[in-house]
Amino acid sequence: MIKAITSTQNPLIKQLVLLKDKSRERRKTGQFLIEGKRELSLAIKGGYNIETLLFYPDFFSESEAKAMSRYGIEIIEISLDVFQKLAHRETTEGIIALVNSKSHQLEELQLKSKNPLILVAEAPEKPGNIGALLRTADAANVDAVIIANPKSDLYNPNIIRSSVGCVFTTEIALASTNEAIEFLKKYNFNIFAAILQDSQPYHKQDYTLPTAIVVGTEATGLTQEWRDASTQKINIPMQGIIDSMNVSVAAGILIFEAKRQRDFK
Amino acid sequence: MIKAITSTQNPLIKQLVLLKDKSRERRKTGQFLIEGKRELSLAIKGGYNIETLLFYPDFFSESEAKAMSRYGIEIIEISLDVFQKLAHRETTEGIIALVNSKSHQLEELQLKSKNPLILVAEAPEKPGNIGALLRTADAANVDAVIIANPKSDLYNPNIIRSSVGCVFTTEIALASTNEAIEFLKKYNFNIFAAILQDSQPYHKQDYTLPTAIVVGTEATGLTQEWRDASTQKINIPMQGIIDSMNVSVAAGILIFEAKRQRDFK
Repeated sequence: MIKAITSTQNPLIKQLVLLKDKSRERRKTGQFLIEGKRELSLAIKGGYNIETLLFYPDFFSESEAKAMSRYGIEIIEISLDVFQKLAHRETTEGIIALVNSKSHQLEELQLKSKNPLILVAEAPEKPGNIGALLRTADAANVDAVIIANPKSDLYNPNIIRSSVGCVFTTEIALASTNEAIEFLKKYNFNIFAAILQDSQPYHKQDYTLPTAIVVGTEATGLTQEWRDASTQKINIPMQGIIDSMNVSVAAGILIFEAKRQRDFK
Repeated sequence: MIKAITSTQNPLIKQLVLLKDKSRERRKTGQFLIEGKRELSLAIKGGYNIETLLFYPDFFSESEAKAMSRYGIEIIEISLDVFQKLAHRETTEGIIALVNSKSHQLEELQLKSKNPLILVAEAPEKPGNIGALLRTADAANVDAVIIANPKSDLYNPNIIRSSVGCVFTTEIALASTNEAIEFLKKYNFNIFAAILQDSQPYHKQDYTLPTAIVVGTEATGLTQEWRDASTQKINIPMQGIIDSMNVSVAAGILIFEAKRQRDFK
């Protein structure tokens, strides 16, 4: 017999709505919501611990849901009302999962290769940009993404959505700027800081040794700490009328130049 | 004596609200609105014909507005009410301009160089992506952007905003897919179509001759016409779990590889 919830006033549902809407609640409890099959399967692939799966049976079959219970996941049938209350997007996939956050400590980073390539983003703000950065990091199969001085929580529904779920499969650490610099120096990374002033064209640099590419925000760029800590300050030559680029586009250009030099190995 | 409008019910103001909100109205009249100083100055730089400038005097000085009237631009003082009715963003710059569209015919394209580099985007939908594509095109100083089979009008307020105004200074043509292909063939462009299947890695190609880089939508990719017409189908090697990238990031990587090969000349 599957447990069922049909009231939006149910205490669990009220708690899940809080988790959907409030970053503070996500931080406090260490839990968040995932919506959609693809995102959920990526979270499972990424080793996330799924606590509860809620499904609306017209959209998601009971047998599929029961298959999940084999993994020790609690399954709950919900009404359309409840589903719509919990859904962030307009989907017809009919599933919402309550998931436990992972730790994103710098010292726990698992670097995949001996000659790692890391993307560092300092204080990125817009969820859409963070999602695009993570998709770029995924496509390039970088060893890790470090978010230095993070401004939003990683499990913001808009980050999950704009990353197409690869927020769950990318190796991500959150740290202060100083911790990130200390970590990169300790492991002998060459630090390339993307800065317009007093910098060298990016395409004349060598990214074949352990490399960290560091990008700042569009509004304020990188902080002085990164300027001081960098092995080399680099720029993408700007030949137009505007003197800035979308941060995720800039990161893509830099990361893939490193990939090219490494012949995509 | 400067003309003043204080009522949101004024017929001109009602017409401007329509232009702000309705693509159909913009198409019908060939006019659109610009908000903000930077955007307006880029439009003037781009050779746009400014019809009327409306300003709210607490934010924008009368003397600045009068300076505009020297260029034959009608200036109208408006109340805060009217300004807020017309403003798309929350700005405190206090100016809104009524501007005439440009023609974006393919055959009128002005290519800047003898060995041109063109970015083609087929059927891009999201204003934010179009804006980011235009910023990339600006930074790379490409000769032109062709939007093939356009899905939204170029003067959508969100495109203007996300392009940071370089929609006004970039050479842009709008055309059907067939017209675009015909144009590129007529002028002997090498056409590189970004397609995952049956394609070669982008970084092994030569972009030093007249080059068109063509990107499709994330959802459906490029149409068969482009596959058939391309000199070479190219891909960005995808080494992650997700098999797609943000279209503006992909375009940035491809365009800047061409720029690198051309040594940014």
